[in-house]
Amino acid sequence: MNSKKEYYAVIFTSKRTSLEAGYKEASVKMELLAKKQPGFLGMDSARNEIGITVSYWDSLEAIKNWKQNAEHQIAQKKGKEKWYSQFNVRICKVEREYSYLK
Amino acid sequence: MNSKKEYYAVIFTSKRTSLEAGYKEASVKMELLAKKQPGFLGMDSARNEIGITVSYWDSLEAIKNWKQNAEHQIAQKKGKEKWYSQFNVRICKVEREYSYLK
Repeated sequence: MNSKKEYYAVIFTSKRTSLEAGYKEASVKMELLAKKQPGFLGMDSARNEIGITVSYWDSLEAIKNWKQNAEHQIAQKKGKEKWYSQFNVRICKVEREYSYLK
Repeated sequence: MNSKKEYYAVIFTSKRTSLEAGYKEASVKMELLAKKQPGFLGMDSARNEIGITVSYWDSLEAIKNWKQNAEHQIAQKKGKEKWYSQFNVRICKVEREYSYLK
């Protein structure tokens, strides 16, 4: 990722319900779909007691378009109905960053 | 967290080495220490293939002070030497957020 250019992070933190049906499939499908969206830069995910997915985007418009994507909207609806007991979405501007690689 | 007031997120993504000695203890200690810092607002963590810890702070100054905390500096040094094969730190301004609770 080019750290010189302005970009944005969407921090999605969630707690799951016990309903497994359809979750894994939708999760994989949405990750593949997100990667095809204009302005998508990258994504990291991990889950223990809570899940954290951070996706990176080149503009607020790209984030808005992804939120409004028709297939994603269906997944969001199912997410609320079935898979998540709670979640939080934070849209953030990356102000600066640094890395370490052994 | 008060969504009306400006605040910041530090997204720490990491990959671990296979060295376990001291890691868990330091991790717990740093979380407790972070929570005592002025300007600390909250923290979420999860780890599978990668680890993601997001901490929230009320100012960039609070983030800088935490980075420079003496005990934290020692942990950062050990982190590079022993526990992490790579990591990335992104300092972000939270532009907006929304939540869902069943």
